[in-house]
Amino acid sequence: MSFFEAHRARLEQAVGACRARVYWSAYPEVASGKIYGETAKADGEAAFKALLGKPFDLGESGGRRVGREVSPYGMPLGITYPAMDPDALIERSMKAGDGWARASIGDRVGVCLEIVDRLNKQSFLIAHAAMHTTGQAFMMAFQAAGPHAQDRALEAIAYAYDEMTRVPREVNWSKPQGKGDPIVLDKVFRIVPRGVSLVIGCATFPTWNGYPAVFASLATGNSVIVKPHPGAILPLAITVKIARDVLKEAGFDPDVVMLAPDEAEAPITQELAAHPGVAIVDFTGSPAFGQWVRENAATDLVFTEEAGINSIVIDSTGDFRGMCANIAFSLSLYSGQMCTAPQNIFVPASGIDTNEGHKSFDEVAQALAMAIDRLLGDPERAANILGTVQNAATIQRIEAARKLGRIIRDSAAVPIAGFGEARTASPLLLAVDAKDDRAWGEERFGPIAFVIRTGATEESIALASQSARRKGAITASLYSTDDAVIDKAADAFARAGVALSVNLTGGIYVNQSAAFSDYHVSGANPAGNACLTDSAFVANRFRVAAMRRQKTA
Amino acid sequence: MSFFEAHRARLEQAVGACRARVYWSAYPEVASGKIYGETAKADGEAAFKALLGKPFDLGESGGRRVGREVSPYGMPLGITYPAMDPDALIERSMKAGDGWARASIGDRVGVCLEIVDRLNKQSFLIAHAAMHTTGQAFMMAFQAAGPHAQDRALEAIAYAYDEMTRVPREVNWSKPQGKGDPIVLDKVFRIVPRGVSLVIGCATFPTWNGYPAVFASLATGNSVIVKPHPGAILPLAITVKIARDVLKEAGFDPDVVMLAPDEAEAPITQELAAHPGVAIVDFTGSPAFGQWVRENAATDLVFTEEAGINSIVIDSTGDFRGMCANIAFSLSLYSGQMCTAPQNIFVPASGIDTNEGHKSFDEVAQALAMAIDRLLGDPERAANILGTVQNAATIQRIEAARKLGRIIRDSAAVPIAGFGEARTASPLLLAVDAKDDRAWGEERFGPIAFVIRTGATEESIALASQSARRKGAITASLYSTDDAVIDKAADAFARAGVALSVNLTGGIYVNQSAAFSDYHVSGANPAGNACLTDSAFVANRFRVAAMRRQKTA
Repeated sequence: MSFFEAHRARLEQAVGACRARVYWSAYPEVASGKIYGETAKADGEAAFKALLGKPFDLGESGGRRVGREVSPYGMPLGITYPAMDPDALIERSMKAGDGWARASIGDRVGVCLEIVDRLNKQSFLIAHAAMHTTGQAFMMAFQAAGPHAQDRALEAIAYAYDEMTRVPREVNWSKPQGKGDPIVLDKVFRIVPRGVSLVIGCATFPTWNGYPAVFASLATGNSVIVKPHPGAILPLAITVKIARDVLKEAGFDPDVVMLAPDEAEAPITQELAAHPGVAIVDFTGSPAFGQWVRENAATDLVFTEEAGINSIVIDSTGDFRGMCANIAFSLSLYSGQMCTAPQNIFVPASGIDTNEGHKSFDEVAQALAMAIDRLLGDPERAANILGTVQNAATIQRIEAARKLGRIIRDSAAVPIAGFGEARTASPLLLAVDAKDDRAWGEERFGPIAFVIRTGATEESIALASQSARRKGAITASLYSTDDAVIDKAADAFARAGVALSVNLTGGIYVNQSAAFSDYHVSGANPAGNACLTDSAFVANRFRVAAMRRQKTA
Repeated sequence: MSFFEAHRARLEQAVGACRARVYWSAYPEVASGKIYGETAKADGEAAFKALLGKPFDLGESGGRRVGREVSPYGMPLGITYPAMDPDALIERSMKAGDGWARASIGDRVGVCLEIVDRLNKQSFLIAHAAMHTTGQAFMMAFQAAGPHAQDRALEAIAYAYDEMTRVPREVNWSKPQGKGDPIVLDKVFRIVPRGVSLVIGCATFPTWNGYPAVFASLATGNSVIVKPHPGAILPLAITVKIARDVLKEAGFDPDVVMLAPDEAEAPITQELAAHPGVAIVDFTGSPAFGQWVRENAATDLVFTEEAGINSIVIDSTGDFRGMCANIAFSLSLYSGQMCTAPQNIFVPASGIDTNEGHKSFDEVAQALAMAIDRLLGDPERAANILGTVQNAATIQRIEAARKLGRIIRDSAAVPIAGFGEARTASPLLLAVDAKDDRAWGEERFGPIAFVIRTGATEESIALASQSARRKGAITASLYSTDDAVIDKAADAFARAGVALSVNLTGGIYVNQSAAFSDYHVSGANPAGNACLTDSAFVANRFRVAAMRRQKTA
């Protein structure tokens, strides 16, 4: 049975899910032995340990080797990867792309589905790789880098498949000519890829943010060069290795997917992005570099997820405790290093109405601080929620931020059992006034949040939505018991292109974006120009070449 | 009955046609009184004449007036149009866009469909307007600027409608939590437009090339500023007027569609395109200006149809006479001023096999020249096929081209009865060698064609497809009785992103691109980055803003 036939039912479900956008998931997020096999956890850990301190084998004959990853949990990984010059990479990618471009939609999509299936089986290995590069806690690393990323991959494949199959393969075009014979043409429409697709990965969610681009490009016939962040190579190296194995088994040149690792001291991303041989660039990372990519990539076809400043507007609530707990979790999860994490919490100076009576501005701020303390009170739970801090610069950023307002809750290191050298930080919570926009008006990546005193909810909504238009935002969150306020906020945030969550108090958080349902990044404000995943994310990765032939009598 | 309900059946047929891509047309191309009304022809002509020499009324209170259109048939139109500064235009467009963005998909699409329906009823007026700006012969102006353009508009509306309605409006997302209660979110997905859409028109097919962008942007909720070529304002002015009338009737601000006319001496296109208030730019025109737009538009969202060099490869034919007649027509139609018209005809030095025996290179070239002479032998028919030359620079280009090769057939003026001052030119046909690529390797817009002597068909295909990759091409045409040659050419032209026509000998020509079936411009070579019309042409003109709300118990 072909890969395509083997995975066809799942593909069709995925295509349906992309349309319906109700809850659906292909890959279980529960790291259970019952699902992944009783030895999967131990096998994954052993496989990870076996990789440490060694050259990583990608089946490539590379001369030079690079790689200096250091786990945010404290130890260097000691893994090196085969490196190639950009020219050589692109030449090999182009060459391999020829055969891939000629493959049928089914063959290509089948290979993609098989890769994702095998990635799923390696979810525990990938979890360890993600944990020790992104610094996430194990369980989050498992979910975000494993099944959630795999769902995002499948979603992109489903969109690509759906989009390609919307184009008929062959048609018979017959134009009536009054009483005469019709003019008849046989037409054949061919999907032609763009060429070499460069995927520039980030250090915090290398697979979750990278897979949609990798698989959208791959399914539509492009060859893919995966350029990982120098701090988070391993999860993508494992991915590329699995992809190359599947490609080879299916009879394709494994160079259809290549890894382009580098080190922070000798970066190659700019050279790759500006190379005229690159037809598509996908980028996840900082707005500064994102702007460089948009302006300097040789191709016009650039998809970005940059960053923004996410806001919470608190107007009123029917569940004060639930609200505070929910926000505390959102601020703490992965130490605020999610592109969806909130930074700015707008609260009216006059306070808010709640089910526990009126709460003053200061009471709200204090309650948020206490909710964080409560959440992180148990050290083991704290470690499981916070994980570690991916980049040392974030620790310095917290240090500098302390001066930006009145400290409501200070950030502190949080010891993690077994990892004495782990780089950690709990949330810093500062109170500021609306006019202090030099403090809250900039993105301060990491566990840094502001409780902002505004004149009223109307001002909160205006400031938050204006900030989104100006600086970008991926998420916004609103707490209100007043439908008129909810409607007003819905209008304002929709026009600013921000995904709004309303009254989250239970086990769901504004940070979370579910494949097959949530559109991650709208593309409509500076937080990014693309969305994971919609038609626009896939439709321009291929073109249609037509042939029409006159029927001879 | 709403506009949407009134036109719903047609819309649904159009959506189906876009998928099936078999022959379908909504607007009859036959300029018959039985279809358009017995007085339609006379009414259209009278309406056109009534516009001449007067200020054109767009229902705008504009101070300044511009407009210096001169018919290529000889007389100045004497029509002026209300002009506004770019800042003022964009401000008004933004303001009007607010209400339009909030309208429902059905309301917006209904307005679009009603506009196209009324444009169809004015096809005779638009035909005269197109004839005396583009210089096309009347019947071609009727079809191309009328029903064919209207079909292209409907196609874009259908794509936009289909794409928007693929996004569910409201969903209930329920995520199972093992034995616990599921997490339930009510999600609302809103289509949000990009903002102000600028459509930059061309002088040769102002409506056919402009409508897809106008209606794709309009249907998806953007306000539209139509910037016509200073030489072909009238067809788009009539269009804008009809659009504004319908908008007003439907209760919208007519400034949702505005005209931005200028004069060649004081152009405003660059200022408009580089304005940060413009969110989408659509451009049809020269590669030089297209490059400027792509590089300097304030927005990244730029759709272009620029130009290319289209080729015919002659390998062999089973209908020598039919082939020559077909090519002669393609070279003559509208004096070679179609972006789909062929320029380069590659013929092996050793000649070709035909149903009339072997023909040498020179015999093929001579037969083509004779076919043109035969086609244009009758002056009335010649005028109806050639029309006039839109731009005086084309006449100079023909003059300069005479030195580029051996003249097989010279270009000449072709008198048109009743229009003594018409600017006309029949095709110039030159013989050159493959190595003379300084002659044939550049786009020479107008009735200029080269018969190029190559080593063999393989070289012909290679040269034509390489030229397409380098300089762009929209169409290619092949004549061959050998399926292996056809397959090879299909591969080469598909990879160069060129639409290939094979063995056209009857009443269908490589120049013709049918709405609902042919993809016009692939977007995969320098002839343009967009296609009329595919999903990619519409999917990025809007974004999705989501709201999710936790269900309270």
